Formats: sequence, structure tokens, C-alpha cells
Amino acid sequence: MPRKPSYDRDALIAQARDIFWRQGWAGTSLKDLERALNLKPGSFYAAFGSKDALYALTLERYAQDGVARLMAMADEMGPLRALKAQPHLVIDAGAVPTHACMLAKTYAELQAKGHELADKASGHMVEMKECFATLFRRAQQAGEIGPDHDPDRLAARYQSDILGLRLSAERNDVNAAEIAADIASDLDRL
Amino acid sequence: MPRKPSYDRDALIAQARDIFWRQGWAGTSLKDLERALNLKPGSFYAAFGSKDALYALTLERYAQDGVARLMAMADEMGPLRALKAQPHLVIDAGAVPTHACMLAKTYAELQAKGHELADKASGHMVEMKECFATLFRRAQQAGEIGPDHDPDRLAARYQSDILGLRLSAERNDVNAAEIAADIASDLDRL
Repeated sequence: MPRKPSYDRDALIAQARDIFWRQGWAGTSLKDLERALNLKPGSFYAAFGSKDALYALTLERYAQDGVARLMAMADEMGPLRALKAQPHLVIDAGAVPTHACMLAKTYAELQAKGHELADKASGHMVEMKECFATLFRRAQQAGEIGPDHDPDRLAARYQSDILGLRLSAERNDVNAAEIAADIASDLDRL
Repeated sequence: MPRKPSYDRDALIAQARDIFWRQGWAGTSLKDLERALNLKPGSFYAAFGSKDALYALTLERYAQDGVARLMAMADEMGPLRALKAQPHLVIDAGAVPTHACMLAKTYAELQAKGHELADKASGHMVEMKECFATLFRRAQQAGEIGPDHDPDRLAARYQSDILGLRLSAERNDVNAAEIAADIASDLDRL
């Protein structure tokens, strides 16, 4: 019978996610990870294989959590109210490593290199965009937004604005709450 | 009499800007720069001092060029039309290393580290935002937008949306031209 590992794999992935999210791919060494997760090189290798394999797991976790949170909110308060709440939520999210979206940060850092983690981040951003489109579509079916809008186009613009908002929320000279309020109130005009 | 250096300093700064813009700070080594600029370590040191000092010069160049281009456009076509043209311009700009804003990329990469280049990038983003606010103010004085808007708030939202647009323009799954058109047409409702 294999010996049960003496660590909580989920907790380690969450910890690694926060390090990558804050420091980026190039800014995080294998040594940084081994030290932070308190794993010897051999144990790290046995648990995760490589820095890139662990990074991919953290991206997946990050994206799944984001989709699950938004969908739960939509079930609770309806699609349009969830879309209006999301901008406030992403900049209010308590103790996050940074407000900027981890998927966008990864993509911006690695896409020019042709790195496969950029493709993975891109795939997760597409999932997120489709989740937004689903909610715009439901809001339209419920008569909460006009019938002439294309839900996919609304979703692409909305996601773009949220990415900008999340970058803006990192800045000291910007009132991100005002920007979030303006993104939300734009949805009332649809 | 000091010997004239046998290189074009401005051209080297532009070349370094494109490398940093594409690869980021951590992703660019001193060796990368020396090789690309075709400078020996001693000449590099004599010309620029350090990687960080050169990075700061490239940020300054990037920001100055951006402000100058927008202000020239505003002089030519008026403030509101320039603000409406800008979203299209930033994603159409021909052979750029990446569509993402270099200032935002730098800030996102280095702010969590407390690196002084993040402060410099932030300062340049403030200059850019003030430039947007000036144009919104002029548009308001010209009666092109309503009197009840706060030009500074409009500028912050506009800059945030442009940052999002520029990230979005890097993605294959997104029609950035549609997003740019939607940002521009929002300005007509002000």
C-alpha cells in the first residue's frame, strides 16, 4: 500500500498559486517554491513534476474557483445582478496576492515567448468569457437587457473592462471603486 | 576631447524598449541586451549603467511618445475625436512587440516586488491619465460632452478600458476591433 503523503496537496497548490500570481512565472524559481512549500527537491518532483506542471495546476484551480463563484452568485441573485456585482467583487476580494487577473498576467508575460502556459491561460480566459456570455444570454432571455445585443460581444467587452479594472485596482492613484460602479451602471443601459 | 560613441543612443533605447516590452523585466537578461544591442559589457555599462537604468529610459521614451502622439492627434481632429480614435490606434499600431501597454505590463510585473521601476511606470500612467483628463475637459468646454461629467473620473475609466482592450488585443479568441468600437461609441453617449 503506498504511503500517504504527509502534506495537503490542495493547500500546497493554493499556496503555489498565490506565489505565481504575485511574482509571475519568471519571477518564481524552483528554489522559491521548494522553500515556500517546505518540500525537498525530491518531494517536489514526486508531487508535481516540474515548476510548469505546478503552474498549470494553479491556473486550473484559479479559473475553476472564479467560474464557480460567479455561477453561484448568479444562481442566488440572477444573471444581471451577478454581472453587476462582479466588478465590485474582483477588486474587493480581501487578502489576494494582487488584484490583477492571474490568467491575464500569465498570458501577458508568456504569450510572446510562445510558452504553453500562455495557451493554458488563454483557454481559461475563454471559459470565463463563455461564462459571462451565458449570463448575458440568460439576462436577455429574462428581459433584463434588450433583445438587440449580441451576448458574445457584450461578454468580450465586459471581460476586457474587468481586466482593465483589475489592473487599475493595483494602482494607488486610481479610484477603482468608481470604475467598478461605472462598469456596473453601464449594464443598466443595455 | 571625448571620443564620440560609435552608436546611435536613441536607436539603442528604442531597440531595448521593444525587448523589455515583449519579454518583461525578469525575462530579459543583461546578456540578452548586450547581444541584441551588440555592445560589450564595458560599453553597455558606460552607455547605460545598468539594466534597470536602461529600462527606466525606455519607459520614459514609451510614455513621451504616447502622449505626443495623442496630443498631436487632438490638435488635428479635436479632443473628442482623438479620444474616439485612440482605442483603434492602440490595437492597430503596426509592428509593435505586443499590444499590451508597456507601462501596465511593467507595473503588473514589478509592483508586488516593491521595485522602483513599478513606481516609474505608475508615474507615467498618471501622466497619461492626466492627458486623457485634459482632452475630456477640452471636449466638455467645447460642448462635445455633457457638463455633468467629471473629466478626471471619465479619464480613469477610459484609461482602465484601454488597458483592458490592449490585453484583449493580444488574444486570438477576441475581436479587439469590436471592443475598440464599443469603447469609442460609449463616448458619444456622454
